Amino acid sequence: MAADTTGATDVPGGPKARSIATDGARNRLLYLAMTRGERFWRGVERVPAARLRLNAALIDRMINEAPPRPEPLSMLAPYTSWASLTDRTYSGRHLPPHAPREGALPSVARAAELFARERDDDLCPRSTVLFAYFAQWFTDGFLRGESTEPRDPRRSTSNHHIDLNTLYGLTPAATAQLRSFEGGRLKSRLLDGAEFPPALCSGGEIKKEFSELGAVRFERLDRERRDALFALGSDRGNGQLGFTMMTVLFLREHNRVAALLADRYPRWDDERLFQTARNIVTLVVIKLVLEDYINHITPYHFRFLLDPRLTARLRRAAWNRENWASFEFNLVYRWHSLIPSTLTAGGADLPLARTLFACDLLPSVGLGQLFEEASEQRAGRIGLFNTDPLLQPVDAASIADARAVGLAPYNAYREHFGFPPVSGFAQISGDPKVAGALRERYASAGDVELYVGLFAEQPASPRAILPPLLTKIIAIDAFSQALTNPLLAPRVATAATFTPEGMAIIGGTRTLSQVLHRNVPEDPRPRFVSQTRRGAP
Amino acid sequence: MAADTTGATDVPGGPKARSIATDGARNRLLYLAMTRGERFWRGVERVPAARLRLNAALIDRMINEAPPRPEPLSMLAPYTSWASLTDRTYSGRHLPPHAPREGALPSVARAAELFARERDDDLCPRSTVLFAYFAQWFTDGFLRGESTEPRDPRRSTSNHHIDLNTLYGLTPAATAQLRSFEGGRLKSRLLDGAEFPPALCSGGEIKKEFSELGAVRFERLDRERRDALFALGSDRGNGQLGFTMMTVLFLREHNRVAALLADRYPRWDDERLFQTARNIVTLVVIKLVLEDYINHITPYHFRFLLDPRLTARLRRAAWNRENWASFEFNLVYRWHSLIPSTLTAGGADLPLARTLFACDLLPSVGLGQLFEEASEQRAGRIGLFNTDPLLQPVDAASIADARAVGLAPYNAYREHFGFPPVSGFAQISGDPKVAGALRERYASAGDVELYVGLFAEQPASPRAILPPLLTKIIAIDAFSQALTNPLLAPRVATAATFTPEGMAIIGGTRTLSQVLHRNVPEDPRPRFVSQTRRGAP
Repeated sequence: MAADTTGATDVPGGPKARSIATDGARNRLLYLAMTRGERFWRGVERVPAARLRLNAALIDRMINEAPPRPEPLSMLAPYTSWASLTDRTYSGRHLPPHAPREGALPSVARAAELFARERDDDLCPRSTVLFAYFAQWFTDGFLRGESTEPRDPRRSTSNHHIDLNTLYGLTPAATAQLRSFEGGRLKSRLLDGAEFPPALCSGGEIKKEFSELGAVRFERLDRERRDALFALGSDRGNGQLGFTMMTVLFLREHNRVAALLADRYPRWDDERLFQTARNIVTLVVIKLVLEDYINHITPYHFRFLLDPRLTARLRRAAWNRENWASFEFNLVYRWHSLIPSTLTAGGADLPLARTLFACDLLPSVGLGQLFEEASEQRAGRIGLFNTDPLLQPVDAASIADARAVGLAPYNAYREHFGFPPVSGFAQISGDPKVAGALRERYASAGDVELYVGLFAEQPASPRAILPPLLTKIIAIDAFSQALTNPLLAPRVATAATFTPEGMAIIGGTRTLSQVLHRNVPEDPRPRFVSQTRRGAP
Repeated sequence: MAADTTGATDVPGGPKARSIATDGARNRLLYLAMTRGERFWRGVERVPAARLRLNAALIDRMINEAPPRPEPLSMLAPYTSWASLTDRTYSGRHLPPHAPREGALPSVARAAELFARERDDDLCPRSTVLFAYFAQWFTDGFLRGESTEPRDPRRSTSNHHIDLNTLYGLTPAATAQLRSFEGGRLKSRLLDGAEFPPALCSGGEIKKEFSELGAVRFERLDRERRDALFALGSDRGNGQLGFTMMTVLFLREHNRVAALLADRYPRWDDERLFQTARNIVTLVVIKLVLEDYINHITPYHFRFLLDPRLTARLRRAAWNRENWASFEFNLVYRWHSLIPSTLTAGGADLPLARTLFACDLLPSVGLGQLFEEASEQRAGRIGLFNTDPLLQPVDAASIADARAVGLAPYNAYREHFGFPPVSGFAQISGDPKVAGALRERYASAGDVELYVGLFAEQPASPRAILPPLLTKIIAIDAFSQALTNPLLAPRVATAATFTPEGMAIIGGTRTLSQVLHRNVPEDPRPRFVSQTRRGAP
């Protein structure tokens, strides 16, 4: 009975930390309301007008959990200046710099130990590897630190928009090199009858036609691996199998849409076909972010929709301000624990390292099979003690970067995002192992760093993929960045921008599965493509 | 009696064209309500809470007369693309391109004839030359076409913000060259005990320290005139006496504020002092735009205020979207008719040409006297038949540029901004001379070009400075560009950004007169400084 009155639920593996006492009545009761009463929510969904109104109201409410942009500070300086308000080569920041108490923090190495994977079967309750792939691909388009060394952790190379630069390039010059300038298409080639991007290199050197493109860690690749690289919009596009799979899929989707437009509008020039296909594909991806991806993340029974009138309904939202990707948003998205230590591809279990710069796998295994294999394999559980050794240096770098920019502690962000601060380690997690490991390292719960606290925090229920603070930051930033995209502005999101055919493509696309199935003519068999695992709770 | 029921008023010099029939009941009745009943409005102003609420509501209503940004199109292309939504090196546009009917328009030269000044005493009912000077200086900061030849009329060199680049330079590199890097100050020098900007040139060449700065028409100036130029943020800064006067005044204000901050915050470095002084001076100018300048333009009895909570009250406004200076906004601001053919400076009546590149006048006459002389001289009436021959080429270029970008006709903009379209020339102006001159040139009233129609349109009353369509476009664009400045965002417009001293400076400044009087220590006598002429109706 006590559990009912505090709004707590049983969590296997230890006592529960999430309750009205730790997270506040408003947060906890909303969570319970949204995750109980499935029949009620299905009923709501059957009344279209009510569903659309509730959809807008819930999204508005979620984003309003944090104060709206513009933020008073960026990473440029600890005070507000004209440059800090306008120079977007610096990341945004939600809270001002903070100096930790003397001796309150462990060394970076000792804090990073908290992330070390301890067993290979510590799995996410609901997610597949495809979820990890989609998350990385879509967020890498706007959460972009510097690629050059030495890296300045304050700087951003982001366009601060969901502009699919992973597909179209980060700059107009890069975009021009990726285009074929025929029929609105992106350059591509056929390998065994299937469409792939062109090769970036020839003889181990980047081709002249791709001088504006690049690949991270290029200097560490041998000639053979260089020649296997694809010419892609992002310098990280070849980095890992999943990232490459997504880019190849949407390259095919772009060329499919361009061909369809060229057929319907024979008098349009290449430029108009390209730009209109890009508009359509960008909005298709934003729709998948809301309807396939966010609905997978939230354990709610209510499913969010990107209906055509959503942004008109929300036109008076105070948060409807220009995007600026923040350092914190970049940090909350470091879900390395999602990535299993072996990945199934081409029927084999490959160590993670074999899937880096693994462009060769795409033509040999085929896009359809790779998407299905990623959908059949479970992702890792997001949290502490679950990062593969290969990715642990990134956790250490995240902690070091956060200290270098003077990030405020976990508790300050709890308060900023409307949660009560925790007053003990057991309020972060009911799992004695987690609480104990924190206690060994931090002087008090109030000293725990944001990056550690985000992932140490116990989720709200066994069905939840992410802990509460992380969920809320993701929801605020993702909704407010996606819905402020200029393509979604009420006067822009029309058939004049997308064509009636484009509106139909956008309106008819709800899942990544649909996009895959219409883009594998070389292998038309039905595939299981899903971010949610078969039989998930 | 007929006049009362149509809401028309007598206009000297011809029958009235402005009535409920021509401008619609909503526009006309609002105008009458705002310009009648002075005692009622003074009463409203005496109740602070009511005044602030009404202030926000009226501003919101005025801006909502046009659909909010983002616009579907820019000058980049006749359709919407990712580039057209994001590439701000192209001007914005309110309406899509339009092809005029064959033979419906006169030649550019014949249309430009409509602007030729016919007599020197065709004066504005209310404005002084200082009004013309302030208008040009403040708008030139964000309505910036290309300065290079050949000019692309579609392109913009604007930062799309009121960022005082006229004072601080258009780019960070230019800003750095203008700064002294001591005490947060801008570089300056004393001439006869008065503060002025440094010289741009030495021996007829731009000094190395000012390599990022420049001056329009530099190649046409002889060595002596070059050496008289000031080093200023804008390449147009030396172009005309009034522009230079304003820049010098705000340079002094910047250095005054920086010194005050340095005194109060002795531990701040140059960078923080500079940035904070810039924040304060920028907001002082925005405040003057609203409270001194817009209140001068509108013939309303209600006086608009920039109160500290205004943007918080308006945080849910649908128009609160990122700025993008439009081609049309640039066009409506070409008030050449304001500039008399002779200007009083230093006690003499100088032909307009003598005031171009006239930096020598500033130290010799003194800032105080120049401001007073500009306030004692009446400006020209804004409208047709009143541009000095020296500026007429700009009118011709405006018409040619508008045709080159396919601007929609005057009537289309009437409808876009909520006026009924006119159906005859007499509805544009009741003045038979104006209507006749239009009839001689255009096939029908519906064919009249925007630039011509804007200035041909008869004002709403003898007290009104501007015709109704022009007034509305100015109000919408000026309010929505000023109030979306990031420094005014609710979380930014605080003492943390401006310091308590800065908040007091901003709060205490309501007129250009105040700024002048606190910045002429070399000449402390009281001066008449006003955008509204003495004894204006």
